[in-house]
Order: sequence, then C-alpha cells, then structure tokens
Amino acid sequence: MKVGLIQQKYHGSKKATIQKTLELIEKIPNADLIVLQELHQSEYFCKSEDIKHFELAKDFNLDVEFWRWVSEEKKVVLVTSLFEERAKGLYHNTAVVLDRGRVAGKYRKMHIPDDPGFYEKFYFTPGDLGFEPIDTSVGRLGVMVCWDQWYPEAARIMALKGADLLIYPTAIGWFDKDSKEEKAKQLEAWIKVQQGHAIANALPLISVNRVGFEKDESGCIDGIRFWGNSFVCGAQGEMLLQLSSDKEEAKTVELELDQTYEVRNIWPFLRDRRVESYECLLKRYCD
Amino acid sequence: MKVGLIQQKYHGSKKATIQKTLELIEKIPNADLIVLQELHQSEYFCKSEDIKHFELAKDFNLDVEFWRWVSEEKKVVLVTSLFEERAKGLYHNTAVVLDRGRVAGKYRKMHIPDDPGFYEKFYFTPGDLGFEPIDTSVGRLGVMVCWDQWYPEAARIMALKGADLLIYPTAIGWFDKDSKEEKAKQLEAWIKVQQGHAIANALPLISVNRVGFEKDESGCIDGIRFWGNSFVCGAQGEMLLQLSSDKEEAKTVELELDQTYEVRNIWPFLRDRRVESYECLLKRYCD
Repeated sequence: MKVGLIQQKYHGSKKATIQKTLELIEKIPNADLIVLQELHQSEYFCKSEDIKHFELAKDFNLDVEFWRWVSEEKKVVLVTSLFEERAKGLYHNTAVVLDRGRVAGKYRKMHIPDDPGFYEKFYFTPGDLGFEPIDTSVGRLGVMVCWDQWYPEAARIMALKGADLLIYPTAIGWFDKDSKEEKAKQLEAWIKVQQGHAIANALPLISVNRVGFEKDESGCIDGIRFWGNSFVCGAQGEMLLQLSSDKEEAKTVELELDQTYEVRNIWPFLRDRRVESYECLLKRYCD
Repeated sequence: MKVGLIQQKYHGSKKATIQKTLELIEKIPNADLIVLQELHQSEYFCKSEDIKHFELAKDFNLDVEFWRWVSEEKKVVLVTSLFEERAKGLYHNTAVVLDRGRVAGKYRKMHIPDDPGFYEKFYFTPGDLGFEPIDTSVGRLGVMVCWDQWYPEAARIMALKGADLLIYPTAIGWFDKDSKEEKAKQLEAWIKVQQGHAIANALPLISVNRVGFEKDESGCIDGIRFWGNSFVCGAQGEMLLQLSSDKEEAKTVELELDQTYEVRNIWPFLRDRRVESYECLLKRYCD
C-alpha cells in the first residue's frame, strides 16, 4: 500500500489553503491513502479563545461532501480533520475518513489539550464516539487526533479493536522563545512517544503535522512555529519516511501491513497482557 | 540523585559472578541508587527448559539477606533481580529492593515471555503482587522486570500509583543468525518503547541489561548475545546515559526527579485521560 502525507501551511484563507491541499494531492497521484494534518482547512485557531472561530465549523456537512468528492475523483482513501458543529454551541474536532467517494466513518478527538497557545478545551467538546477504528478499502484505520498521540491507552484500544495502522493528524509546534535544546527535546519526545505506540502494538503509524509560523492575532502569545516532521514508521517503530521541519511537502511511502503479523508472532505482547491487573488504568489516579 | 548502572557478564558460577558485581559496585562509590540486571547472580538459564535450574532459586532468602548486607555496607539503595522459590515447585522472577540495610519491598515479574531461547513460562509463575511502587530513601521506585518493559499498561499503572521513576532489570539479546538490520531494529525498538513510557508518564527511566554471549548448553539454540545498551533517560525521554553493547560497565549519572513536576505542568497528560472510555484495556481483545 502506498501511503501519502501532506504537510502544509495555512495560506491566509480557507479557499487558498484548500487550493494548496489540492495541488499537493496532485503531486502524489499513486497514493492509496492520503492523510492530511489537523484542521487542515484553516489556521490553527486555538492560539486564542475567540467565539468568531466557531464560524469555521458551520459548513461541516459541506466540507465532508467536498472531501468525499475529492476522494472519489482521486480514487483514494482520505483522512481529513475538520471542525464539526454538531448542534448550536456544541463542537468537535473531528477526523472524517472518505473512501473513494464513500464516507467511511468519523472519529471525534477524545483527549482535548489546553495550555497556552492551544486553548482547545474552549472550542472542542471531548469526543463521545470512543476509540473505534474505521474500516476502509485499504484496511482498518485507527484514526485519532493530535493530543491523543501522547496516550498509550488510545493506541492500545485501537489495536485491541483490530486497527491495522495508527493515524494522527496533528498541529504541534515550537514557541520561538524556547531554547534550541528544549525544542529538540520536545520534537524528539513527540516522535518517540508515537514510535513507542507503534512498537508496543506492532502497528505502523502515520503522523501528519502542519508547518509554518502562525501569529497569534490576539497578541496573547507571539504565535506557534509548527514543526512539521510528519512521519511514517513501521511496526517495530523504524522510521520509513520523515518530512522536513519547515517545508510544505507531499510524499508517499510503501507500507507493508503484513509486518504486524510477523512482528507479533516473534514479540507476542498481546498474548501476555495481565488484563486482570490493569484496573487502575480506569482511575484518574490510584492514591 | 546519583544513579548507578551495573551491566555485566555471567562469569561461569554464582560466586564468580557476584564477585564481579561487587567489584563493579566498588567503582561507583557515590551512587545513591544502583540497579543490577535481570537474574544477575546466574547465567540467563531460560535459554532452555531444564528442572536443574530450579536449584538456583533455593537460596532466595539468603540471597536477599546478602544483598541487604551489601546495601547497608555501601549505604545505597540497591535494585536486585533474584530467582525466588516461594514454595516447592512455585517460583517467581523477583526484584528485591534493599535500602541501606532495609528490605524495602519486592516486585514479582508480571508479564512472562516465552519464545525460543526465552522459555520463561516454564520457570516463572506470573507475579501476584501487581504493579506496586516501592518506597525508598531516594524515592518511590516503579520497579518492573524485562518483558514488562514492552507494556505501556505497566508503566502507566506505576505512574498512577505515584512512582518517581521507572526501573527495569533486563536480559535481552540478539541471535547471531539475524541480519545486522534486524538486530538494529530490535535494539532501537527496545530503547524507544521504553523512552515512550518515560515520555507518556513524564518519568525518568532506568533499564539495565546484561552483556556477553551465553551459549545454550542444551544445543536447542546457539545461544544469546545479550546486547547491553543499559540506559537512563529523563522525563522527556532524552537519553542521559547509555552503556556499550559488549562491555561490562559500572557508571553513574545525575538524575533530577523535579523534572517530572516541570514536564507534567507543561504537558499535563494525566489531566486529560478519558478514564471512562478505557474499559477495553481490561479485555484480552475487543472483538
């Protein structure tokens, strides 16, 4: 299977940004699966809390229809990341998977962050669809979104529900004021925690992040320099493709889903889980 | 806190091997905490299934008493890994923590592997003490053993029970027949899955592995080339110390337990866990 990653910038408007996405999709005509970054139609608006941004969720159904059409035109499975207005005043950060013209399923971001510059708890209601893989013509996709990528629980549940691969549209970046060392540590941690999920579950993993500096118009913070580095790793966590930290790119890589079978047979982690001793995992803290 | 790692070979007998351990301990007199490798008193006998090896568990209580005495003499917290005869025919792979002359606690290996050359299910009854951190004068130690290091559940539970650091005495190695690429992938996966636990829980992590080739006397396999690479990483997974793949070594590194507080305040993963949606983790598989 050929997996395509599209890592891009925000181009000042929804129209211009989608135009760029379509151009990048044109560059990888042979991809069987294309993964887009988190909230790829717009800027990463959670840099501040402003009710005007809820407007961006209004056209969710039209957005789904548009990307469904693209997936049909390009004969591809497409993982999108959209802002969903579910009811008046009720919003989700939702990944929608389109399979060659069919809406295959959606995932509503379960773990919602909130820290300076990433005020997501203001915008997004935590997902209520659980961790359910989505069946497509290229496999059973364990699609999650960004902050979910720090949670081993989420990856494991997707694996236990039969996911063939783990997929994370993402928006994460640096603050310019941080030291070079701190930035390197953050980027490495972000990559390694995900490689850890791939290894622990013997599943390939795709993570697609945005690039470019986005100013915080509210002036609360300077802005975020999204660090790119979108990547694909195999079922032993080995890096198969890694994009740059500052360029818009569309690239593909060949992925062997059979590797999971081979790796799990030599490293049978699922066989030896001590499920009767994991109850603490369902608690906030075990004090 | 100064953390000491002792990575060593098997020296043909229990006496000679312990003698070497004591020599290596002499080399790091300033260590506050010393971690030994898995089953450090003997060869890694699980290369084949032979009841004669149960003899090695007979002196468990004497072994504990000996290492308690060492910890008192050296004024150090010592993490040992011993073969425990609990009753006739009932054995555990048990880590015992000695705190400057006091038996601080023990952990019985929970996840038991079994694959060619690592026939542990023959020797070790799965632990029944759960994942309980052990309180010592240098902190609350999340001690586990080897195969546990592949399980995000185990590391998370230790974190949720207040562990200050994660510790894994280990015995893992290569088969000479495997390709260079496969060996590199295995070693990298072993390191990264553990760095993943460090990052996901914002806890420093210590993993101590044996070195040297140990022949399988039964002739069933050639033997195992234990790959060393004992390491310490910080709460963002950053490598602080990494030993060689083939030498006996005793080294120390400074560890800042305060880092957990700082990292968790900027990356508050524990705050956002979706505990009400993790039930699947208590199942073998969620089909």
